[in-house]
Amino acid sequence: MRWRARGAGAPSRDEDGFFHRGAEVTRIEAFVDAAFAFAITLMVISIDQIPDSIGALRQALKAIPSYAASFLLIALFWRGHADWSRRYGLDDRISQRLSLLLVFLVLIFIYPLRMVFDALFSWISGGWLPTTFTLEGVSDLRLMFAVFALAFGSMGLASGLLYLHAWRRREAIGLDALERDLTRHAMLRWAIIPLFSLASLALALWMPVIPGMPWTAALPGCIFFGLHGVQILMP
Amino acid sequence: MRWRARGAGAPSRDEDGFFHRGAEVTRIEAFVDAAFAFAITLMVISIDQIPDSIGALRQALKAIPSYAASFLLIALFWRGHADWSRRYGLDDRISQRLSLLLVFLVLIFIYPLRMVFDALFSWISGGWLPTTFTLEGVSDLRLMFAVFALAFGSMGLASGLLYLHAWRRREAIGLDALERDLTRHAMLRWAIIPLFSLASLALALWMPVIPGMPWTAALPGCIFFGLHGVQILMP
Amino acid sequence: MRWRARGAGAPSRDEDGFFHRGAEVTRIEAFVDAAFAFAITLMVISIDQIPDSIGALRQALKAIPSYAASFLLIALFWRGHADWSRRYGLDDRISQRLSLLLVFLVLIFIYPLRMVFDALFSWISGGWLPTTFTLEGVSDLRLMFAVFALAFGSMGLASGLLYLHAWRRREAIGLDALERDLTRHAMLRWAIIPLFSLASLALALWMPVIPGMPWTAALPGCIFFGLHGVQILMP
Amino acid sequence: MRWRARGAGAPSRDEDGFFHRGAEVTRIEAFVDAAFAFAITLMVISIDQIPDSIGALRQALKAIPSYAASFLLIALFWRGHADWSRRYGLDDRISQRLSLLLVFLVLIFIYPLRMVFDALFSWISGGWLPTTFTLEGVSDLRLMFAVFALAFGSMGLASGLLYLHAWRRREAIGLDALERDLTRHAMLRWAIIPLFSLASLALALWMPVIPGMPWTAALPGCIFFGLHGVQILMP
Repeated sequence: MRWRARGAGAPSRDEDGFFHRGAEVTRIEAFVDAAFAFAITLMVISIDQIPDSIGALRQALKAIPSYAASFLLIALFWRGHADWSRRYGLDDRISQRLSLLLVFLVLIFIYPLRMVFDALFSWISGGWLPTTFTLEGVSDLRLMFAVFALAFGSMGLASGLLYLHAWRRREAIGLDALERDLTRHAMLRWAIIPLFSLASLALALWMPVIPGMPWTAALPGCIFFGLHGVQILMP
Repeated sequence: MRWRARGAGAPSRDEDGFFHRGAEVTRIEAFVDAAFAFAITLMVISIDQIPDSIGALRQALKAIPSYAASFLLIALFWRGHADWSRRYGLDDRISQRLSLLLVFLVLIFIYPLRMVFDALFSWISGGWLPTTFTLEGVSDLRLMFAVFALAFGSMGLASGLLYLHAWRRREAIGLDALERDLTRHAMLRWAIIPLFSLASLALALWMPVIPGMPWTAALPGCIFFGLHGVQILMP
Repeated sequence: MRWRARGAGAPSRDEDGFFHRGAEVTRIEAFVDAAFAFAITLMVISIDQIPDSIGALRQALKAIPSYAASFLLIALFWRGHADWSRRYGLDDRISQRLSLLLVFLVLIFIYPLRMVFDALFSWISGGWLPTTFTLEGVSDLRLMFAVFALAFGSMGLASGLLYLHAWRRREAIGLDALERDLTRHAMLRWAIIPLFSLASLALALWMPVIPGMPWTAALPGCIFFGLHGVQILMP
Repeated sequence: MRWRARGAGAPSRDEDGFFHRGAEVTRIEAFVDAAFAFAITLMVISIDQIPDSIGALRQALKAIPSYAASFLLIALFWRGHADWSRRYGLDDRISQRLSLLLVFLVLIFIYPLRMVFDALFSWISGGWLPTTFTLEGVSDLRLMFAVFALAFGSMGLASGLLYLHAWRRREAIGLDALERDLTRHAMLRWAIIPLFSLASLALALWMPVIPGMPWTAALPGCIFFGLHGVQILMP
């Protein structure tokens, strides 16, 4: 655990084993926070304006599971960036560019992600949860998973590159042995995301579908979701 | 009262009796502030675009009481979070998760809350204040109060859990005797909200309605509003 | 002029003669900044979505004068708050409440203000500059000026109360003789706004209109605009 | 490269050769960051709401090149402001006004810029990439480039004036010989933008078009794009 001690000047290891290097808020951090917060807000509340009847209110409440899933996913990447900047305190050109890239990816993929989660929850609940989006046949399902894999994979890649950048600056930043270990580990965790996504993308596009069982096209997607669920929930 | 003294280094008790631990702005605070600010802004101004006639302007002005009530409610929870982070200066995993949960709850409930207040003020003013939302019968009224109780209760629960978390870290943070007393007190204040909400929810769903007097269904809701009004206005 | 000196620890008077007390960014400041920035952004760009033809582009460009006037007005109040918090560094309950009140007033009046400026610039340009809003007769004109006076006056009142609050805390903050003079002066400057607005409101509502010359109803509004223009442009 | 050293108090030159003067985040910086972040977010995601069919999803994905170009352009000006404030740490009236001017220009030109890029990418891809905006004849093309030149030029001018302001304060800020050189250089880089834009504007408005080859009207625009592309990609 970490807390900002009363009157203490020396930095201390936080609960993850890192010293604090990025205590002051930089411009790029302020920009990233505002963009993430705004994207999440628009994702959740801009679509259905104030419900104008009890029926619309019921529909709005049913969209909560899909909101929650999208919110969690975006929050995961935001926390990744917040951790990264607190641990390494880097604020150079490469950090700025990678941070802006991450913001850009979040912005372009935020509506497709909502759509994919809407469709998923509608499918899981057998149509009880609403979706504005209906899949027609296997090729639509394939495209949907391809988009999800592309979005998740590229956001994971940008996050991984941030950690790679910190790793390459390890001498300049002054990481000690424990911190180097943890940095290597974090790099690997993020690198898994684009690799899994690539595999999932390939499966989604080319896996043969057993005739009469179109849902087999969803198999790689489901495995992918499952694996990531495990990874995310791990401490 | 508190002010940031010229050149003074030592932390001082603020007007509530707490020392300052969270002087620096953390990433999660920046995120929470941005999300609350957007949510409040969208709640107030996104719905009715620029009024395009004098009539539309009159309607927009009549929505001010409902805006004010929603604004106050959201501001109450924002201030709760701001106080919490200034007092305890916690920035660990649990704090981050509870803060994100609070943001999520605000985002999903902000439009339902506006709707409830619109309906309430329209009802109080006998239809003079506008609402886009018309209640049809007792079951609609029940649902409306249930949603309000759910929203208010869950936001209160998240806020209460933040204080509970600070309480459990009291040794590590180094709270003194007065601060521990105040923390216990704050926990209780927040814990009352979900308890009241639960009671109100139960009444809203199951209270029998006296035939010919459908407004009796609104009774628990009104009691609930009244009690909270008293609690909020207390210093 | 003020700049943040390299390595200098002692606070220095800024170009207005004040010492810096509010160097660190507080939560309420972050909230105020985000809400003002968001309100200004929505005011300018949310209404006309991406122009979809050359004609729509031309219309969008013609709205620039009205954007500029609204932007200036909101920026004036934002700067007033920023100056206030830098000079006095207050962050107590009353400051928080007055700051939230200012945000609320900006949010509810931002669209009416845009509308008033649209109508004004359309009228000045003889209809060449666009407005979505057409005035029909004297009573519409009166209402428009009344809304403007109400918006401007109440925002000025909230700003003035912030300075009054700083004045009442002058001992605790430790204002010196020069700063007390400047604070009194700033209070007066802000107090003029609600007083002028009240006078303008009274004139707008009750001034008799010379038959056949309906624009005489606009007279108090124009005088009001003119006087404030002078005040704003003064150093 | 720059990083915030553990426990180090002395400022250090960053990778561009400047000392850090603007370590603390000022109100105007917070305002600029929030406004830029909203503008970029709205530009990318507010237009096409959640795609409601696979076809709409395909269209949304095809808009990515245009999003990317607009994002890059706005990010360029944001970074210019962030660099400027980190290097010189100025926070006086002129800085505030120039910063607010830059925000205003970004807000009014953000949709026209998206439109220009949409049209450009649609034209380059022979209509495969979507645009909501169809050019009809040479005069539309001319207007489009004129708007782009106006937007780009005026944002460049505002950025250049910020550097000019820092240059005029060079004694007060305490710039050393190397920093003065770099400041002069930065001023020139920004000054090129409005000069090029002016030339491009003149060409766009008055260049004769070879009969039967309407695209020759696009020539100055393309040269302009090309030159800036080179300038932007230079380190």
